[in-house]
Order: sequence, then C-alpha cells, then structure tokens
Amino acid sequence: MTSNKPLGAALFGVGRIGQVHLKNMVDSGRLIIRWLVDIPAQHGLMAELIKRHRLTGETQISDIESSQKVLSDPRVDVVIICTPTPTHYDIIKRALTAGKHVMCEKPLTLTISDTKDCYELARTQKKILFCAYNRRFDKQFHTLYQRYKRGDIGNLRVVKFTSREGGQSKQYLQNNKSRIFLDMAIHDIDYICWLVGGRPSSVCAFGSISSDNAELYQTFDDVDCVTAILNFPNGVMAQMEDTREANIGYEQKVEVLGTKGLIQTQNMKTSELCTITQNSCQSEALLGTFFDRYKDSFPTELNHFVDAIEGKEEILVSAESCIIAMEVSEALSESLKTGSIVKL
Amino acid sequence: MTSNKPLGAALFGVGRIGQVHLKNMVDSGRLIIRWLVDIPAQHGLMAELIKRHRLTGETQISDIESSQKVLSDPRVDVVIICTPTPTHYDIIKRALTAGKHVMCEKPLTLTISDTKDCYELARTQKKILFCAYNRRFDKQFHTLYQRYKRGDIGNLRVVKFTSREGGQSKQYLQNNKSRIFLDMAIHDIDYICWLVGGRPSSVCAFGSISSDNAELYQTFDDVDCVTAILNFPNGVMAQMEDTREANIGYEQKVEVLGTKGLIQTQNMKTSELCTITQNSCQSEALLGTFFDRYKDSFPTELNHFVDAIEGKEEILVSAESCIIAMEVSEALSESLKTGSIVKL
Amino acid sequence: MTSNKPLGAALFGVGRIGQVHLKNMVDSGRLIIRWLVDIPAQHGLMAELIKRHRLTGETQISDIESSQKVLSDPRVDVVIICTPTPTHYDIIKRALTAGKHVMCEKPLTLTISDTKDCYELARTQKKILFCAYNRRFDKQFHTLYQRYKRGDIGNLRVVKFTSREGGQSKQYLQNNKSRIFLDMAIHDIDYICWLVGGRPSSVCAFGSISSDNAELYQTFDDVDCVTAILNFPNGVMAQMEDTREANIGYEQKVEVLGTKGLIQTQNMKTSELCTITQNSCQSEALLGTFFDRYKDSFPTELNHFVDAIEGKEEILVSAESCIIAMEVSEALSESLKTGSIVKL
Amino acid sequence: MTSNKPLGAALFGVGRIGQVHLKNMVDSGRLIIRWLVDIPAQHGLMAELIKRHRLTGETQISDIESSQKVLSDPRVDVVIICTPTPTHYDIIKRALTAGKHVMCEKPLTLTISDTKDCYELARTQKKILFCAYNRRFDKQFHTLYQRYKRGDIGNLRVVKFTSREGGQSKQYLQNNKSRIFLDMAIHDIDYICWLVGGRPSSVCAFGSISSDNAELYQTFDDVDCVTAILNFPNGVMAQMEDTREANIGYEQKVEVLGTKGLIQTQNMKTSELCTITQNSCQSEALLGTFFDRYKDSFPTELNHFVDAIEGKEEILVSAESCIIAMEVSEALSESLKTGSIVKL
Repeated sequence: MTSNKPLGAALFGVGRIGQVHLKNMVDSGRLIIRWLVDIPAQHGLMAELIKRHRLTGETQISDIESSQKVLSDPRVDVVIICTPTPTHYDIIKRALTAGKHVMCEKPLTLTISDTKDCYELARTQKKILFCAYNRRFDKQFHTLYQRYKRGDIGNLRVVKFTSREGGQSKQYLQNNKSRIFLDMAIHDIDYICWLVGGRPSSVCAFGSISSDNAELYQTFDDVDCVTAILNFPNGVMAQMEDTREANIGYEQKVEVLGTKGLIQTQNMKTSELCTITQNSCQSEALLGTFFDRYKDSFPTELNHFVDAIEGKEEILVSAESCIIAMEVSEALSESLKTGSIVKL
Repeated sequence: MTSNKPLGAALFGVGRIGQVHLKNMVDSGRLIIRWLVDIPAQHGLMAELIKRHRLTGETQISDIESSQKVLSDPRVDVVIICTPTPTHYDIIKRALTAGKHVMCEKPLTLTISDTKDCYELARTQKKILFCAYNRRFDKQFHTLYQRYKRGDIGNLRVVKFTSREGGQSKQYLQNNKSRIFLDMAIHDIDYICWLVGGRPSSVCAFGSISSDNAELYQTFDDVDCVTAILNFPNGVMAQMEDTREANIGYEQKVEVLGTKGLIQTQNMKTSELCTITQNSCQSEALLGTFFDRYKDSFPTELNHFVDAIEGKEEILVSAESCIIAMEVSEALSESLKTGSIVKL
Repeated sequence: MTSNKPLGAALFGVGRIGQVHLKNMVDSGRLIIRWLVDIPAQHGLMAELIKRHRLTGETQISDIESSQKVLSDPRVDVVIICTPTPTHYDIIKRALTAGKHVMCEKPLTLTISDTKDCYELARTQKKILFCAYNRRFDKQFHTLYQRYKRGDIGNLRVVKFTSREGGQSKQYLQNNKSRIFLDMAIHDIDYICWLVGGRPSSVCAFGSISSDNAELYQTFDDVDCVTAILNFPNGVMAQMEDTREANIGYEQKVEVLGTKGLIQTQNMKTSELCTITQNSCQSEALLGTFFDRYKDSFPTELNHFVDAIEGKEEILVSAESCIIAMEVSEALSESLKTGSIVKL
Repeated sequence: MTSNKPLGAALFGVGRIGQVHLKNMVDSGRLIIRWLVDIPAQHGLMAELIKRHRLTGETQISDIESSQKVLSDPRVDVVIICTPTPTHYDIIKRALTAGKHVMCEKPLTLTISDTKDCYELARTQKKILFCAYNRRFDKQFHTLYQRYKRGDIGNLRVVKFTSREGGQSKQYLQNNKSRIFLDMAIHDIDYICWLVGGRPSSVCAFGSISSDNAELYQTFDDVDCVTAILNFPNGVMAQMEDTREANIGYEQKVEVLGTKGLIQTQNMKTSELCTITQNSCQSEALLGTFFDRYKDSFPTELNHFVDAIEGKEEILVSAESCIIAMEVSEALSESLKTGSIVKL
C-alpha cells in the first residue's frame, strides 16, 4: 500500500474489459471509485458490480448521456475509458477539458488527426493521457524489452510477431468495424515500434480470408488473416502475422534476433501437466483468450498509470508512439488494399 | 455469483496465509467477514486490512483471548483458522461446539487423538470440518487425479513426489517445532494416500542435514531433507523427497506411473521467456515460494468449502484421509528415528 | 539389407558434404563405390577416405579432368555430385548422356534454363535426376508434411520458415557467389512450395547487412539477412527469414497454421540436460551446424534415391518443383533488388 | 583418424548388442576385425555381417567351442565380449591369460568373487579389463558428471534415478535369469556410486509385480518393478526406480540436487515436432528402446577403450567401482527378499 491519498476515479464502460479494470481498481487500494458510467441497458449490471465489489456508499451510477456531471465532479481525478472505440474521442476530450487524467483502451481514436488532437489537449491541460497498450506490461514482453535495452542480444536485426485468436463475436466486430490492423494488429505494431525505437520507412501487407467465418469478414470488407513486413531505417526488419480465426487457442509470441542472441516469448498453457503414453507426450491446451493470457498485465498497467499521476514514473506510452502505431496501421491497411509497398 | 445468501465468517490469524485467505474471502463475494481475530500485537495490521479491503462497517476486530464472543455471534456461520498449529485444537473445538463450520490449515492438530476428537465432535455437531490441503485444489494436481480416476493411465504402479523449498525462517520453524514430516511432507503424504486410495502397509524414511543452515535444524532435533518409500497393500510404491533448504526456488512435482501411461506435473517458472545464445538456451527461474506456485489453489479451495456448506459438493478431504496422513507422518518420523522399516 | 544387386556408384566431390554422402553410401550396403572423383589437390584425401572406409580394391580415384572414363565405366550405374554449383551443369549432362542416374546437391544449376535442359535430358534418357533437397527427408519436416497431407490441421493458411546459421567461410561464399536466395533460402522455398503445392503468384523480399561480417557480403553484392512473403493463388501466405550470420547456433524451423490446428518443428539442442539454479533454468546450446542438425536426413535421402532407381518409390523431388524453386528464388532476388512486389 | 597402428580385434557374440559394437568397430577406423565368434547357429549371420561391412579378407569366423585359436592369434590385441552373462567369466579369463585387453558387457560376471578374480588377473597380466557401463559415456550423463565435479551445483544432497523400459522378451529374461538388480538396475547403481564417489552404508528395496506380464517374472522368482533408497556415509541419499514393463517407451532420467543447484537429464523423443489444436499441445513419443536412446554412447565408449589401450586416457570404469556395483546389487536383492534395511 502506498501512503498517497487515494485518487477518485470514474470508469466509463463496464463490458468485458471494463470489468477487468474495475476489479483491478478495487484491488489496487489506490483508487476510490466514484462513478460507473455506461448506457442505460447496463444499469442493472453496474448495480450488481457495486454490490459484488463492496462499493455501496462509495460509488454512484451514471448514464453516458448525462456524464458531464461525472466529469464536473471535483472528487474525480482520473477517468478510465472502456467504451467502444467510436466513442473514445468525445469522452477523452471532455475529460481532459474537465482537468482529469485519462487512461483509454486502444486504439485511442479512429483517426490520426483525432489522436493528435487529444494529445495536444492533454499537453495544454498538463494531464496524462495514457493509451493502454497492455502488452507492454506483460511480464514476458516487458522483460524482453528490458533485456534487449541492457544489451543482452546486441543490436536488433529481426523481430517476429505472431498473434492468433479464436475468432471474435459478430457484435464485437461490428462495434469495431472489424479493421484487423487498427483493432487487433495495433498491439503488435505498437510493441515492435517501441522496441525498435521509431517509425518504419516502408511496409507491405497481404491478407486472406479463408476461415469458416469468411463471409462475416467480407461484410466488413476486411480479412481475417494478415501477414506483413515492416522495414526500419536502421535495417531492422519486422515480420507480423495476425490471425483472427485460428482454432488453437490464444497465441501472441514475439521473437527478437540481435547480433549476439535471440529472445523469445513462449505460449502459456492452461496447465503444465504432461501425459506420456506409447504414442505421444501430451501437454495441455494453450490459454484460450487474451483475458487469460494477459490477466496479470492489467493490474500492472493500472498501477503504472497511478504511479505516473503520482509522479513516480514517466508514462510508458508516449504521444509520439501512439501516433506512430496509428500511422503504421493505416499504411498497412493501404498496402493491403493496393497490393503494393507503402513508404512512410 | 451464486444466489445463496452470503455466509458470515470469522478469520482467526492474519499472518502470511491468513492474508491470502482474507483476500480470497473478499473476492469470492460469498462471505460477509464479521470478525478478524488475532493476538493484540496484530490489531494495527487487522485495522489496515479492513481498510484495504473496504470492510469498514462490515468487519470487527477481536483478540484471541476474548474470542468466545466471536464464536457466540449468531451472524457467524464459518470459522477459518490460520493461527500456529499448537492453537488449532482449542479453536476448532470451541468453534464446532458453538455450531460453526470450520476450515483449518494443515496439520489440523499436533496429535492423532486430538484430530480424531475434532472429527468426532464435527460428526455429532453435524458441521463440516475441512482440513485445507490446498495441493488437492491445484489445477495440475487436481487434473492429474481426475485423469487417473477416469482411467487414462490404467492401474497405478509408482508415485513420485518431490517437494523443495528455499528454507524457512527461524520464527516459522519455532512456531511449528520444525517437524519436517508433520509440517512440510504432510502435503505429499495426503496427496499420495488420496491418489492411491488408502493407507500404506509399511514405510521407511531417511534424512540428512547437510545444508548451510544445518545447525538451525539440529536445535529442533530435526533434519532438513528426507527421502522415503511408502508401500501400499495393492503393490503401489510411492517415493517421496522433501527438502527444506534447496537453493533453486520452489518445486513440488509429482509423477504417476500406471500400467498404461505416465502423468507428471511440471514446475512453473517466473515467466516463459527464453534467451538463446551460442552457449545455451536459458529459461527463467522457478517460482520462488509456495505462495506464488499455489496462489490459484487457495480461492478454489475456499469456494469448495462454501460449496460443501451449501450442499453443492461433498467435502473433498475426509476425516479418514486426514487421520491417515497424520498416522503416516508419525510412522515416517519413527522410521527416521529408529532406522528401520515401520509397519502400519 | 535389400536383396537387390548393389548398384555401382561414382562420387564427384569429396569435400564436406561429399564425405557425408560417402559414409552413407558405404553404410547403406546398397552401393559399390567404383570411383571417387575430384581435383588433383584432393587425391591424397581420396586415398585416405578409401582406406578409412575399407574400400581398397573396390574404389578407384579419378581427376575431374579425365572423368569421362568414369562415366564410360559400364559398372557405374549412379553418379552423385557434390562439387561446387558452377560445375554441376556439365557433370549432370555428361552423366545423363552416358546413361547414369544422377543425384546432385542443390541448387542443380545456376540458371533456370540449364535446369530445364538437364531435366529434359533426363526425360529422354529415361534416367532419374534427383536434386537433393535433404530437408524433405528430415524426420520433423517429413512428418509435418505427412500430417498435413492426411488432414491433421485442415486447410493451410500460413507457413513460416526461419533459417539461421552461424556464418559461412569466405571460401564457401566465393564458391557459391554468396547468392542468399539461390544458395541458402532455396531449401525453405522448395519446402514451402512442396507443402503448399505449387507456385506463388507474387513475392516480396527485403534484406539487411548489419552483421560484423557486413563487408564480406558487400563484396558479393549480397546481404546476409532476408525476410520475404510468398503469396499463393489459394490464399496461403508464407513468411521466410534467412539469416547467414546469427550467433546462436543452427536454426531451421517451420510453423504451419491450418484451419484446424498448428504443426511446428522445434530446434534441436546439443543435449537435453537442464541445470536449475535460483536464477534460471538453463538448457544446452542449439546444434551448431546443418551437418549436426540434418545428419539423419542424408542417409534417408540416399536410400530414397536407390529405392527410386529400384522402382520401389517415385522420386520425391520432381522436375517441376525443382524449376519452381529456382523461379521463386530469382523472383525474390529481383524483389530484393528492385524494392517492389514481383508477380510470377 | 589417429596415427596409431590399428589394433587387431575379436568380437565374441553377434546378437543385438554385438552388432551395435561391430558397426562402431568398423566405423572407428581404429580396429582391424580379425575374428567374429559365436555359436554355430550364428555362422550364417556372421557371414552376412562380414559382407555387409566389407570385411571380406579381413575377418574370419570361429565357433565359441574352438575359440582358443582366436585367443592364440598374435594379431588379436583386444577381445570384445557380447555373449550372455553366464559365459563372460570363462571368456574373460582365457582372453586375459592370452594377453589380450578385454571389453565386456555388464554385468561382468554372475558373482562378486568371479569379478574380483577377473580384475586380479587383469592386474597381474597388466591388461585392461573394461566393463562397458555405457551410460557413463552418454552425452547427458557424462556432462552431468563433469558439471557436478567442477562445482556447478555445490555438494551433493539427493540423487534420483528412474529407469523404465517396455518389457523384455522371454528369451532375454531367460538368458539373464531376469535378476532385475543385476541385469537392469546395475546401470543406475554404477552411475550413482560413481557420481557420489563410493559405497552406500545401507540400502533398502521394495518390489512389485503387477504388470500384464506378471506371470513371466514369477517364473524367475523376480519382480518387474523396484524402488530403492541408497544411503551414503556422507549423507547423500539416492532414490532409484527400475521398471521393466512400462508402456511409455524408454526412460532413463537422473536428477541431482546439490547445495547450490539441480541438474537433470531429460527424456529424448522420436522427434521434436509439436502439434497444437484447441485441445492440447502434442509432442512426439519417447524413444522406444535403450538402443535408440544410447546409440551415440556406444561409439564413445569404444573409442575410450581404444584410447585407454593407447595410453591416452585412464580407463573410466575401475575394478573397485565394478565390484561396488555388484555388492550394492546383491545388497538390494537381499533387502527386497528379507523386507529389511541392509547394511554394507
């Protein structure tokens, strides 16, 4: 427990990821949860969450429509945004204008100019705007970054990123208009550019749509599997694969080859049990979703946000890197569409 | 969340393991924590825990000396005991007499007759007395048990158990009088006898005391490393090793050979990262303590206890198996002392 | 041992890979080694090899210059070619013309038209011309192929190939004019196209040259690291990385994602030993070279060649696939040079 | 290739293990194989082996009955014995008496006194008598030994040995009278005593016979599964398990806990391929037999023998350690029979 006075917080959006953050907010002991905010259809759920987390008396409920009263509440220091992507821009702007620190799920907004707008406002308001790229806070991914930075593998040569998930619901894809690069691959893009340290000079991407759910993606004019290469000015080459519809559980692995060695993350399984028979050595299945795989990264991410507000750490995800990730995402989408290499 | 009315609970002992249970009691949403009970020196800590877990208004503090008022509180349905082993017997007896369900850390008591006493009282009071052998609730260990029971590896032939930890504090050893079999190996013993299904017909044990902390164990007339074999009437042989002072992190692994196959648990590491250089492929260190290794088993164990009270499951640790574990523990101690094979 | 009459064989080239094949020819028990053929500077080595393998009386030595007498020897049924790539074309043509079956190291020749020439001659001569893509005969790679073909992972979606070695000698690079795609990556290309079953419709490649030996590769107007993507008409995408100068031992791994599952080969280590201390779990280094990694594939490959001659199996590497591998190799070289996507 | 003049050799016994040694003798290039010796029923096989290995003109065939002419042949320097155990003593004695160096499969003889006899004769004859404990020459096992000796894991505390095989033929068991300790476990015993450095002060053993082939072992008054503990004067404890009838492929693993760390060997699989589906991560089966598992140890062992004869190395398996292994084997058999701890 820290000796700092707990900060007041408002949480916008209590869906899947919102509930993850809420639990971590409670567990942290560093935040007083003043408000839960969501659409009217979620009021019952919000009431249940308040009871489950023993927040009665501490936490109020608000509709998003009337959320200006939440942002005007002087007891609120931070706003955490877990609503669908199209709603981010408005909430971020209003929260920063009201003088709150903001943590927001990725992608921050739908366009680069909106993202630049938000960061400009954060700068003039002298508030923190934190885009929650949680992979940076995963133990494997973070340690890999640190080991590379301290020189364990020499200079970077090749980075490989593989991300596979077992499909998304129609509802989720609709909310985010599918957009495989902006919604899914942006985690890879952010991590790669953070690790390499800058912007690629050219990218190319290819896609396919051959899963059982092909039609679903066609309705969004999207694909469910992309491969790409990012070329950096310093000669580093990064390979990416993002597959929405892989029937093998959740995978997100990175392999980094330097001039002196290689570091790689490895998949996590549901358990380490092993069964040996005459025919095989069988291990357990991979973890099923990113919620399972990254559950420990979310509290770390949240504590980092609070630490940054309290002046103990510098915020790890800069405006610049957030903008780079969006630019690269757009360049990859263009390459996929045009079938040619795109220069940045 | 279950629809059952939350049960009222009192927690005795807020040390290391007590705090683990407290967090899980809060997170479960199935218990109203009426009382925290410990010695006066822990009152400050108890107050802090109440604040940290948002229990103000819900939870009161009591001294152990005056804990009869806690046990007389009709709002208390369950008592969870995490105090040092020598205090268990008195608290269990008083709690059962007061008509409470009891969950108690292992070993239940210091002697077999005391343990029998407690279970007899639980029987006449028609209350649950649950000895918290948490390994049974670990995902690896539990799945292994289920797979064997459903026939995946045929009939049992050999069981191997290895338990190693990085030393214990002098304070801890003093509280528990060291007693390597009763305090440490009893987890292995319980699991083995549960798996094989009964009592060994003979056991033998050997010990050594060659670590850097040898003197510490000599003061308790104990050793810090034991190996043993348990022979079961059905021909199954079990090998055990328990090492208090191993400088490699925390290990507890089991390997079970049946007539049709082998199942083994595997160590868990601090992360799955891997670094490859010209000289080696280096993985991360093992988890450091049993708190890290078994952190997921404690909420599972607690939920099982509540499920049993609510009539949804039969309690997994029977009186008989709890008594067997103590008998085997005593037989092994005798074998170690006499240098001969001991029959049960 | 087979009941067939042993075939007479001539081996051209007794360098590194030639010696590997010679040992396997002896061990197979299926070939009488009539001739060793190499340049005069190797006569001493050839004499030593004859002694070491107990071939005195069975095997004669010939200079390459005067090797027509070898090809005219009616006791010679098969010619195995392990000389530098630029010499392949002439030897293959003369051997086929003389009515011999030919097994030749990859790449078969330096140009596609030469390769087509050779296969046309083999067709008219009704002799086998076998390009020794040994990866196809590696246990891991071959089993992967078979499992995919029998449907274990459904339809192919993504193939990933990673090849890394610890540098090549200046001599070797000079002999083969470096040519990273034609000399090194062609193994990956062949395997990928074999697995996917055909020719990619477009490819793109990028390269870098940032190792300590950068200057060496610049003298050959080549790079020491390439990444590439191959797009196949059926939507399958293949990613490749080939790195000449990786300081981590020898790596060649493939990962194949299908609609129902994933199969991956894994690196082989110098030994399976594992050392655990408080700081790490350390495994042994990777195997150092492809000779270590693939040593079991060479006898399998040789036996396949003899089986094909004896009519027991159809030759696994077809003329068409050999030509495809060279076409793709050229397209990748062109993409690397022009910085654009190349269609085939 | 060494510059030494090749030694002349005679091989007694061309069964399973004899053929393994023969191939390695040929491949070594350090031995001229003067004689193959076996019973008349094996003459056809011996002729075939001579042809297969291109030994015509070099190697003659002899019956065991008339093998004195082999031992009198001045061109024979070494005798390698792969006949059934009961025949060892006579051949060793005659070979040493004739002034030959001897390499013999384990166990050297059936009784301790015979073994002492043989070593005494070797001493007076100034010839090497090498008992072929091949595990000492396995890469994993040998490296483990070296790492411990150079101090990587501090002082020894616990050694664990597990040996499992998939059953033996009735013929094999009959030839060796089953004798699980003398025939199978003696490899473990030898390695453990070599590593710990001496003789245990007490041992205990238990056995079971519950496999599908139970009756087979009963006919030999033997068991098919034993567990044991060896206690050494320096406090080191060793656990052993030897299982004849395990249906999981071949396993022989050792785990060594020292005061500073742990080293363990790991099972070897038929291939490193891995298949991932939604349900599991499946690796390939274990190697099936000790011939597969230890195939690389046999040539190493043979080269060591020749090196020792040529004065380049001291023989690794001493008379003393060979006698200790037999004494421990007898003590374990006695413990198994009497059901009590046996002191040495």
